[in-house]
Amino acid sequence: MIKSRAAVAFAPNQPLQIVEVDVAPPKAGEVLVRIVATGVCHTDAYTLSGEDSEGVFPAILGHEGGGIVEAIGEGVTSVKVGDHVIPLYTAECRACKFCKSGKTNLCSSVRATQGKGLMPDGTSRFSYNGEPIYHYMGCSTFSEYTVLPEVSLAVIPKEAPLEKVCLLGCGVTTGIGAVLNTAKVEEGATVAIFGLGGIGLAAIIGAKMAKASRIIAIDINPAKFEVARELGATDFVNPKDFAKPIQEVIVEMTDGGVDYSFECVGNVQLMRAALECAHKGWGESVIIGVAGAGQEISTRPFQLVTGRVWRGSAFGGVKGRTELPSYVEKAQKGEIPLDTFITHNMPLEDINKAFDLMHEGKSIRTVIHF
Amino acid sequence: MIKSRAAVAFAPNQPLQIVEVDVAPPKAGEVLVRIVATGVCHTDAYTLSGEDSEGVFPAILGHEGGGIVEAIGEGVTSVKVGDHVIPLYTAECRACKFCKSGKTNLCSSVRATQGKGLMPDGTSRFSYNGEPIYHYMGCSTFSEYTVLPEVSLAVIPKEAPLEKVCLLGCGVTTGIGAVLNTAKVEEGATVAIFGLGGIGLAAIIGAKMAKASRIIAIDINPAKFEVARELGATDFVNPKDFAKPIQEVIVEMTDGGVDYSFECVGNVQLMRAALECAHKGWGESVIIGVAGAGQEISTRPFQLVTGRVWRGSAFGGVKGRTELPSYVEKAQKGEIPLDTFITHNMPLEDINKAFDLMHEGKSIRTVIHF
Repeated sequence: MIKSRAAVAFAPNQPLQIVEVDVAPPKAGEVLVRIVATGVCHTDAYTLSGEDSEGVFPAILGHEGGGIVEAIGEGVTSVKVGDHVIPLYTAECRACKFCKSGKTNLCSSVRATQGKGLMPDGTSRFSYNGEPIYHYMGCSTFSEYTVLPEVSLAVIPKEAPLEKVCLLGCGVTTGIGAVLNTAKVEEGATVAIFGLGGIGLAAIIGAKMAKASRIIAIDINPAKFEVARELGATDFVNPKDFAKPIQEVIVEMTDGGVDYSFECVGNVQLMRAALECAHKGWGESVIIGVAGAGQEISTRPFQLVTGRVWRGSAFGGVKGRTELPSYVEKAQKGEIPLDTFITHNMPLEDINKAFDLMHEGKSIRTVIHF
Repeated sequence: MIKSRAAVAFAPNQPLQIVEVDVAPPKAGEVLVRIVATGVCHTDAYTLSGEDSEGVFPAILGHEGGGIVEAIGEGVTSVKVGDHVIPLYTAECRACKFCKSGKTNLCSSVRATQGKGLMPDGTSRFSYNGEPIYHYMGCSTFSEYTVLPEVSLAVIPKEAPLEKVCLLGCGVTTGIGAVLNTAKVEEGATVAIFGLGGIGLAAIIGAKMAKASRIIAIDINPAKFEVARELGATDFVNPKDFAKPIQEVIVEMTDGGVDYSFECVGNVQLMRAALECAHKGWGESVIIGVAGAGQEISTRPFQLVTGRVWRGSAFGGVKGRTELPSYVEKAQKGEIPLDTFITHNMPLEDINKAFDLMHEGKSIRTVIHF
C-alpha cells in the first residue's frame, strides 16, 4: 500500500475533497502510474452531477492524464517502469472481437468492470480509512498514484511534456479523431461544428488538417469565436442571432447544407440540427457530445432516406495504444496547438476551481499539476 | 391529343376510376411512352390514402412500369421511337449538382415540379373533360399513354419482357440496391431484414448476391417466410412470438447484433428496432420504408456514439439511366427471380382489386397489363 494525494468525489453534487488515499499494488496485468498532470473534462462534471447512470460514489474521477509508470504487476510486458504513458478510458487489448474487427476502437476487454468503477478482477485498488473507493473510466487521474490495466495505457515519447499532452487523453483526440477517423473528411469539404468547447475546437483542428474548404463554427457564446478563428474556422454563427432554426441558417449559408457536421455539446436538439444541416444526398453528421441520461434524438426518417448519414464517435475512433503516440508526435511538431487549449494551470488543491471555471464557460481546459 | 385508358384517382381514399383521358403530345425534352405493364406498389396506396403530403388530386398514379417509346419531343436524343423503357421516379440528368457529385442518385433536375404533379414546364399533359389531371412521381404508369421527361427514362434491351421487368422500376431495385449500393454489404456479413413485402424480399436477394453469411427475415406474417426462404433467407423471426423487444431478440441470436439491418416497412418503431439490433462498433441500419407524414424516428444517441450508423436509401441508391439496364440483365440471367414477386396478373379494369390484395397481404406484386 502506498499513500496518494487524491481529489475524491464522496457524493454526487458535492465539491471534491483532497485527502490521502491508500493505493494497493498492481495485480497481474496491472500497472501503477504516477500522474504528473491531468485535464478536467465535462464528462467528469457530468458524473459528479449525479446524472451519469454509471456513476458510483465515492470515486476518484479524472480521465485526461499523463503519467509515469512506477511499478508493474505480474505478466505485464508492454510497459516498463519509467515509461511515460497516457491512461486510456477506451482500452485496446488487440484480442477481443471488437479490436480484431478492424472496424472500431471500442475494445470490450475491460468494459464490464470499468463501467462499475472496478478493476478487471472486480475489486478496487483505492481505499480511504479502510473503505474502498471506486475507480472512474478505468483511469482515476485525480489521484497522484493510480492503477490501470496494461491494455489501458498508451506509451508515449519521454520528450513530450506530460502537463500538455495529457489533454490528448480525451477531448483533443476525440475532436480531431471524429473528423479524421470517423467522418474521414476529405480535402475541399464543408464542415459545421456545433459547440466550441475543447472537443469542438479540436474538431476545427481536425477539419483544418483535412483541408476542409469551409469550417463553420457555431456557438451561443461569441467569446469562443476568436480562438476558433485562430485554429482555422472560416465562418462564425451564433444561433441567438437568428429567429429561424439554426439548421436552416446553415443550409442557406451553404447552398444546401454541409458535407459534414459535428455535435460537440451533448444537446439532443443540437444533434438534430447538426443532422438536418447536412447536405441532402451525402451529408454526414457525427455525434460526439454525451447527452443526459434517458434523452433521445429524433428526426423525420425522410432526412435519412434522402441521403443523410447519422453516426457517432467515441474517443474519435482512435485506438489508443496504436494511434495515440502519433497524436503526441503531431503535438510535438506543432500541428496540434495544445497551448491554445490550456487556459488555466493549477495545483490539485484548487481542482474545484477548475470545475467552476468550466461551468462558467471561462476555461477551455484547466490542467491540474500534482 | 391522343386518347388513353387510365385509372384515375379523382379523390383520396376513393377507388380508382377507369376512364379515357386526353394526353397532350410531348414538349421539348419530353417523351410519350405506351405503358405495356405496371406494378402496383405500397407507395401508390399511401398517396391514394391521402396521407402523402405531396399527394394532389385528381391524379394518375403508378410508378413501376415498363413501356415503349411512341413519340419524342424536340431535342430528345437519348431515346428513340420504339425503344423499350422503364420510367424513373428518380431522374438522372447527369448535369445537376447531385448527379455530378458521384455520391448520390437523388437527381434534382425535375424534382421541384415532379413533387407538385407537373411536368418540368409547370403544366400537365393529362386532362379529362377538359380539366387537367396531375402526374404522379413523374411516371403515371396507370395510364396506357404517359409523358415523361427524357431524363426519367431508362432504355432497356428489347428482349426483356416488359410485364416482368416493370417491377425493376421500383420495389425490386430499391431492395437490392439498398443492400448492394447503400449498405455495400460484404461477403460473410450478417443481415436482418424487417418486413417481407416486395422491398424486403428484394433485399434478401441483394443479401444473397452479396454472399451474406446469415440473412434474418423478420415479419409478423409467418406466411411470408416460405418465399423468404426460397430467396435465400436463413433465419425467420416473428416478433409476435416474443415478449421482449425484437431488437433484443436479434442481438441475442447474433451474439451482439447484425452487421447490417434494413427497414422495409415504413414503421418508425421498426426503424428504431432495426438500428438497435445492429452490432455495437460497426453495425449499419438502412431505412428503406416510407413513414407516414410527420412521424419521427428516435433513439438514444448512445446507440450512435457506440458505433452504429443510421442511413437511408431511395430507389436503392440506383442511378436509373446508368444502372437499371444492368438490373434488367441480371433478371434476364435469372439472378433476380422476378417471377417470385409476381403473385397476380390482371387487366387495368381490375386495378382496384390489386390494391385490395395488397392491403390484405395476399399479394407480393400484382402486375397490371394494358
